[in-house]
Amino acid sequence: MISTIYIINGPNLNLLGKREIDIYGSISFEEFFDSLKNEFPGIRLEYFQSNHEGFLIDKIQEVGFEKNTGIILNAGGLSHTSISLRDAVAAVLTPVVEVHISNINKREPFRKHSFLTEVCEAHFIGLGLEGYRLSIHWLLESSFNK
Amino acid sequence: MISTIYIINGPNLNLLGKREIDIYGSISFEEFFDSLKNEFPGIRLEYFQSNHEGFLIDKIQEVGFEKNTGIILNAGGLSHTSISLRDAVAAVLTPVVEVHISNINKREPFRKHSFLTEVCEAHFIGLGLEGYRLSIHWLLESSFNK
Amino acid sequence: MISTIYIINGPNLNLLGKREIDIYGSISFEEFFDSLKNEFPGIRLEYFQSNHEGFLIDKIQEVGFEKNTGIILNAGGLSHTSISLRDAVAAVLTPVVEVHISNINKREPFRKHSFLTEVCEAHFIGLGLEGYRLSIHWLLESSFNK
Amino acid sequence: MISTIYIINGPNLNLLGKREIDIYGSISFEEFFDSLKNEFPGIRLEYFQSNHEGFLIDKIQEVGFEKNTGIILNAGGLSHTSISLRDAVAAVLTPVVEVHISNINKREPFRKHSFLTEVCEAHFIGLGLEGYRLSIHWLLESSFNK
Amino acid sequence: MISTIYIINGPNLNLLGKREIDIYGSISFEEFFDSLKNEFPGIRLEYFQSNHEGFLIDKIQEVGFEKNTGIILNAGGLSHTSISLRDAVAAVLTPVVEVHISNINKREPFRKHSFLTEVCEAHFIGLGLEGYRLSIHWLLESSFNK
Amino acid sequence: MISTIYIINGPNLNLLGKREIDIYGSISFEEFFDSLKNEFPGIRLEYFQSNHEGFLIDKIQEVGFEKNTGIILNAGGLSHTSISLRDAVAAVLTPVVEVHISNINKREPFRKHSFLTEVCEAHFIGLGLEGYRLSIHWLLESSFNK
Amino acid sequence: MISTIYIINGPNLNLLGKREIDIYGSISFEEFFDSLKNEFPGIRLEYFQSNHEGFLIDKIQEVGFEKNTGIILNAGGLSHTSISLRDAVAAVLTPVVEVHISNINKREPFRKHSFLTEVCEAHFIGLGLEGYRLSIHWLLESSFNK
Amino acid sequence: MISTIYIINGPNLNLLGKREIDIYGSISFEEFFDSLKNEFPGIRLEYFQSNHEGFLIDKIQEVGFEKNTGIILNAGGLSHTSISLRDAVAAVLTPVVEVHISNINKREPFRKHSFLTEVCEAHFIGLGLEGYRLSIHWLLESSFNK
Amino acid sequence: MISTIYIINGPNLNLLGKREIDIYGSISFEEFFDSLKNEFPGIRLEYFQSNHEGFLIDKIQEVGFEKNTGIILNAGGLSHTSISLRDAVAAVLTPVVEVHISNINKREPFRKHSFLTEVCEAHFIGLGLEGYRLSIHWLLESSFNK
Amino acid sequence: MISTIYIINGPNLNLLGKREIDIYGSISFEEFFDSLKNEFPGIRLEYFQSNHEGFLIDKIQEVGFEKNTGIILNAGGLSHTSISLRDAVAAVLTPVVEVHISNINKREPFRKHSFLTEVCEAHFIGLGLEGYRLSIHWLLESSFNK
Amino acid sequence: MISTIYIINGPNLNLLGKREIDIYGSISFEEFFDSLKNEFPGIRLEYFQSNHEGFLIDKIQEVGFEKNTGIILNAGGLSHTSISLRDAVAAVLTPVVEVHISNINKREPFRKHSFLTEVCEAHFIGLGLEGYRLSIHWLLESSFNK
Amino acid sequence: MISTIYIINGPNLNLLGKREIDIYGSISFEEFFDSLKNEFPGIRLEYFQSNHEGFLIDKIQEVGFEKNTGIILNAGGLSHTSISLRDAVAAVLTPVVEVHISNINKREPFRKHSFLTEVCEAHFIGLGLEGYRLSIHWLLESSFNK
Repeated sequence: MISTIYIINGPNLNLLGKREIDIYGSISFEEFFDSLKNEFPGIRLEYFQSNHEGFLIDKIQEVGFEKNTGIILNAGGLSHTSISLRDAVAAVLTPVVEVHISNINKREPFRKHSFLTEVCEAHFIGLGLEGYRLSIHWLLESSFNK
Repeated sequence: MISTIYIINGPNLNLLGKREIDIYGSISFEEFFDSLKNEFPGIRLEYFQSNHEGFLIDKIQEVGFEKNTGIILNAGGLSHTSISLRDAVAAVLTPVVEVHISNINKREPFRKHSFLTEVCEAHFIGLGLEGYRLSIHWLLESSFNK
Repeated sequence: MISTIYIINGPNLNLLGKREIDIYGSISFEEFFDSLKNEFPGIRLEYFQSNHEGFLIDKIQEVGFEKNTGIILNAGGLSHTSISLRDAVAAVLTPVVEVHISNINKREPFRKHSFLTEVCEAHFIGLGLEGYRLSIHWLLESSFNK
Repeated sequence: MISTIYIINGPNLNLLGKREIDIYGSISFEEFFDSLKNEFPGIRLEYFQSNHEGFLIDKIQEVGFEKNTGIILNAGGLSHTSISLRDAVAAVLTPVVEVHISNINKREPFRKHSFLTEVCEAHFIGLGLEGYRLSIHWLLESSFNK
Repeated sequence: MISTIYIINGPNLNLLGKREIDIYGSISFEEFFDSLKNEFPGIRLEYFQSNHEGFLIDKIQEVGFEKNTGIILNAGGLSHTSISLRDAVAAVLTPVVEVHISNINKREPFRKHSFLTEVCEAHFIGLGLEGYRLSIHWLLESSFNK
Repeated sequence: MISTIYIINGPNLNLLGKREIDIYGSISFEEFFDSLKNEFPGIRLEYFQSNHEGFLIDKIQEVGFEKNTGIILNAGGLSHTSISLRDAVAAVLTPVVEVHISNINKREPFRKHSFLTEVCEAHFIGLGLEGYRLSIHWLLESSFNK
Repeated sequence: MISTIYIINGPNLNLLGKREIDIYGSISFEEFFDSLKNEFPGIRLEYFQSNHEGFLIDKIQEVGFEKNTGIILNAGGLSHTSISLRDAVAAVLTPVVEVHISNINKREPFRKHSFLTEVCEAHFIGLGLEGYRLSIHWLLESSFNK
Repeated sequence: MISTIYIINGPNLNLLGKREIDIYGSISFEEFFDSLKNEFPGIRLEYFQSNHEGFLIDKIQEVGFEKNTGIILNAGGLSHTSISLRDAVAAVLTPVVEVHISNINKREPFRKHSFLTEVCEAHFIGLGLEGYRLSIHWLLESSFNK
Repeated sequence: MISTIYIINGPNLNLLGKREIDIYGSISFEEFFDSLKNEFPGIRLEYFQSNHEGFLIDKIQEVGFEKNTGIILNAGGLSHTSISLRDAVAAVLTPVVEVHISNINKREPFRKHSFLTEVCEAHFIGLGLEGYRLSIHWLLESSFNK
Repeated sequence: MISTIYIINGPNLNLLGKREIDIYGSISFEEFFDSLKNEFPGIRLEYFQSNHEGFLIDKIQEVGFEKNTGIILNAGGLSHTSISLRDAVAAVLTPVVEVHISNINKREPFRKHSFLTEVCEAHFIGLGLEGYRLSIHWLLESSFNK
Repeated sequence: MISTIYIINGPNLNLLGKREIDIYGSISFEEFFDSLKNEFPGIRLEYFQSNHEGFLIDKIQEVGFEKNTGIILNAGGLSHTSISLRDAVAAVLTPVVEVHISNINKREPFRKHSFLTEVCEAHFIGLGLEGYRLSIHWLLESSFNK
Repeated sequence: MISTIYIINGPNLNLLGKREIDIYGSISFEEFFDSLKNEFPGIRLEYFQSNHEGFLIDKIQEVGFEKNTGIILNAGGLSHTSISLRDAVAAVLTPVVEVHISNINKREPFRKHSFLTEVCEAHFIGLGLEGYRLSIHWLLESSFNK
């Protein structure tokens, strides 16, 4: 029974709502996160963001062995370059879902490959912030929540 | 206001529930489709499957200019080889969502590239049959449904 | 002496005049075809379109052994993916001319290579519908019409 | 005990004996098929040919779950381009043998790779029509016929 | 209103009719040019040939800003190697049509890519000397001649 | 009239029946060879094996100019690396058939290309030891045996 | 009016003057920075160095929305590997100039590509420490300083 | 005379003994490190681990200019992605030995290339924890220890 | 002591101010050159432009052995294609600086590689005409001017 | 319990101490081998060298099925080209350790890939002759010696 | 009977003896040419050098249709970039021999491929000026001199 | 003073005069070798041929340390595959000249690269048997013969 979900955002996602609004939309992640908490009162939702690969790995290691837990991970630009992050995801026991706000397939070629893809359980790509919400739905309804 | 959603499945998806059950699960698409219709009584859901690239293009052209309509497309193996299908999707006015039941990134290399990716509005990959259900949710809640 | 010319169009060319008007122009192929028939009263002009690779191959096999005949083929997206269509063109005896309405060299990279190029006698690329008309001129004046 | 063998030929193989005689020889497949039936009176031999990828997939799905059956497949140009056909072969339970009349390794580079190779049980390449005959022998003597 | 058309030929095209007659035919370009002038008495036709990349660029710069003018360019071997020539074509205002006498797609691989393709308005490839004549027709009938 | 057939096996095929039994089966080549001789009493069958590229070339040169002779060659790992062996096969007059016991297309990528493919007359791949037997049949029935 | 310029140096540039003196010269960046401050008394010059990708991103985000500001960025080895740093540069509003002390084109191949190149306004490569000084000149004279 | 050896471990190596025990074994690095200290009482052994590229670079810079010192570096996933770490190793004066516990050549293709290989003095790959012990032996006996 | 600097411009740079004004700006090189001469009265500045690779090589050979001289070279499109120009630069004794007005890294892929890069002393890329002025500054202050 | 270790050296390693002394050192392998035998009196050490791929394969087959045995293999240049040698190593039951005296990663690119890497148990690269000695240590202490 | 031999040298070969003496030696081509004329008094030797691709093509066209003539061509850097020069060589009737003074295979990778190789009759590479002399010998003794 | 020259021929060159006469000519190497001995009575000429890579390496090692000696090596197909042969050539002290009878650049792509090229002193390619004779001339006149 999943009772806690960690949303972990990587580099530059703290700028959400401030930068490149045509791509990422104009509301900040904090505002969006509040609405998520309202929508899912029955589970504990936690949010963590860092621009540091190292702190993201630390965090995944810290919560990734907790029971009844899921992780929603948007690693931003690190998705395409960090084998260490991939190794952390592969090492932990918690199910991890990969989210990308924009459609990374329609952008620069170097964004097409994600090192996380093969070690995550599911992928929500190009759905805007909606991707986070659907990830929670999926975690709650998937076989990990039995 | 989207009032009709077409689910269009490509080659071999008629075998769902019959073949490679470890990858695709054991219920047939018809059974699953019935449950979807029950879950979304407010909209018209239509289902079409063919093993023929040509009939899939015909169908997309036929329904793709209707108003208040959305298409959920799982083109199966054609996703990776058919520029003509891509051209049909690009030509029509209806929003089209790409679905893959299995995580195509974890399978053979030739399944990693989809010609449909750049012309579809959203992507639900590796979520099992759940991907179809979340696609309907997304279509109903996205900006296309205003 | 060429007395019959078949114009064979592939997938999505039935949408001509309806879709992507900035690329393909706004008149339908049927209208254009009527004007061609007026311009060339001395020869029999036939038109065939299909979204099905199989029907296109059937048609090329059917007319490709007739005498005094030429084929003008715009295979659309199949040009870049169908070895079977290429094999059909290579197998028949009739001269086949390749036409592309838009300049495929200025579009996506996957449109740069055509499997038909090496088995067709001539190529009219990026000339708009004018390409069909000049193809007829060329067929009537080339060495095949002796 | 294999009691029925389906020979399924793909695009342009209906032209056998009519086109490119230096590559494919001068007798039609129908004539050759009659001689095969004479040679193997103890089993049921069936022949199906189509230029349509879709009909080939339909056929493989239709007969591929029958018991005591084998399939000999020469998919022609589709061998090199059709992932859907590969998926159909992988989905069915019947053993499938791949045949190519000409030595595809001595022809154009794009004929070197076959999507069918990894999902078929055996390969008879460059043996002329003899390849079909040896395929039947192999099916009858291989472990599938126990 | 196009009243002058420059035909500009690159390296080795002065040998036309003298060398490799099986590929390029046996009449010289001068003879062919005279017949073109007869066929189009209403416009001024000018001919320039050089084996020097530099002189070809000089010429294109010289005439490329004239009004009511079109250029037909067969840059020969330079088509595949000269970015400077491409830059000259891109810089001028006159419409430029690319012509190749032989089918460059059937020859050595290094002839498949032309730096000129993306900056020219239309392409006449593999039509023999006929390509020049059809280019004039196209220039006179295209939207540039309004 | 072929009256002698040499079976020439390359490196490590002397281990047949001793190593990697799941891939190569459990009977030794000597045992298999005896059964072949019984099956084809009308022709002389000779067997040669070496782990040395040089001795294989020597042997092919020695027997490859004999009349009424055929060679069945399984060069093992040398198939993918030895241009010298290919040159020997190309130099001799005897027809040479290429055999691989396992399906080299399903193994490591470096086993997909064989330098021998283009210089051999036929290919029997992935048929187990049966491949040798069918090779003899083919040699006896092909046009080389006229 | 640019009144503040941040010089941001990435990994290992704190070793300047200490390591690989033949490539990078023998004075420390601190000494050089003092001479820069003397030369440009009219503007505020700030210096930041870190071996941590995360702190570099933090810093760029922190100062990159200030008005009348420019950034000179030498990201060292991260230039070639960090998409996250690129995203930070693309996200901020301040003009960013890329500097490399050595000529990265004359060194190992993996130093040829910089993810920063396309998102920076100008590039000073292979000019030694002089590159920083010329960058300031350029920032003060370019259109960003209006 | 080497009197101090630093063992520096990169991302996720703090999980040793906790995760993927089939690949990495079941004892923690701390336990193993204690046994090493017992085995080599005559030298000072220090251990440092971080999930942060930046802290690893800081550490290498800090100890890499000490005299009579050696570094044993297992950079984990950063080995394959970090040019900055490579630059740090190249910049310091201390000999650096590269260790990988598992055989990185038998795992995913992206683990085959290490940016550290060319700047380290020796490599111990696929030897399990034993690799650290043999590294100390090698450092003590190599020419660096004169 | 550098007392003379040659600015050598390649193909199409004579069109500066006339063509593609959004990329290259609207003043001619002659006007800009006059302003440079005013700014640097103490040295002799010479300007040479040609569309001919050959004349550019001739010029570099002619002035490249003079004493107290520097060359600023913008070879335009030839930068990417001319090994002969590179050889000329490598052969002469004068320091040569490479200039590109636009940021060649943001344009077509074929402009990313310059054959001149490795044989020039410094590079000023994407700085507009300002690049020439900064090049003079750099030549006068670099070690070549001692 | 390993009681015998075979050291097998490939082409040109008989020249050790005679050629390219800066790369390989100046003592012959025979001298080194004697010192090894003194150091490990408790086990039988055998040495074999050949310039012939075939004899190396013969040897590996001969000793590779003995009990209580290990092989240390330095195949020299054959490491990068011989699939047959790899097959031999894969076929035998004895553990095989790969040794390279020089750091093959710092030499020509064609020395980076070894066909042996994936079939050997451990790798000692770039440690000089010390690599052989550490290999013996590792064989004696690894799990193969239980 | 060859009575005249033209030596045609391309860009920068006029600097021979002046530049890069370690690669090209210290005597000028004129001096060397005089010694050649002395050595071969029975034939007419002519020498032509240009830095212009165009003049080289002009020259080859001019002399390439003379009877009893041979050409020795060292095209310098143009060998690797000029398809037009290749076309000129292919067009003329005179035998053409390719010479390179230095061993182009030991230099930069872009010097490895020569467009001239396939259209020249013979190749003298890396023999210093001796290559010209041996070329004359070869022309006088080859089958072209019958 | 070179007093002995060894001609070493690799695989299949013993067939000279017997096979593929259109490529290699019709006289045997023995006959040709006799004529060479007559032509150069002042030096000792020795000839060695083997189809075994190992014997060729043995031979090169044996004679490659003799004084006043040169080697002419035509390694046949091994030129393109044998790193061990290259290592042998690099190891010995005698100058080695590479000869290929046919123009390997006009044949299959895999013959374009020779591992020997970079370690040999000179190259005679595509000159027929004449290449051996010119090699002797070059050895006798080159700086090795001082």
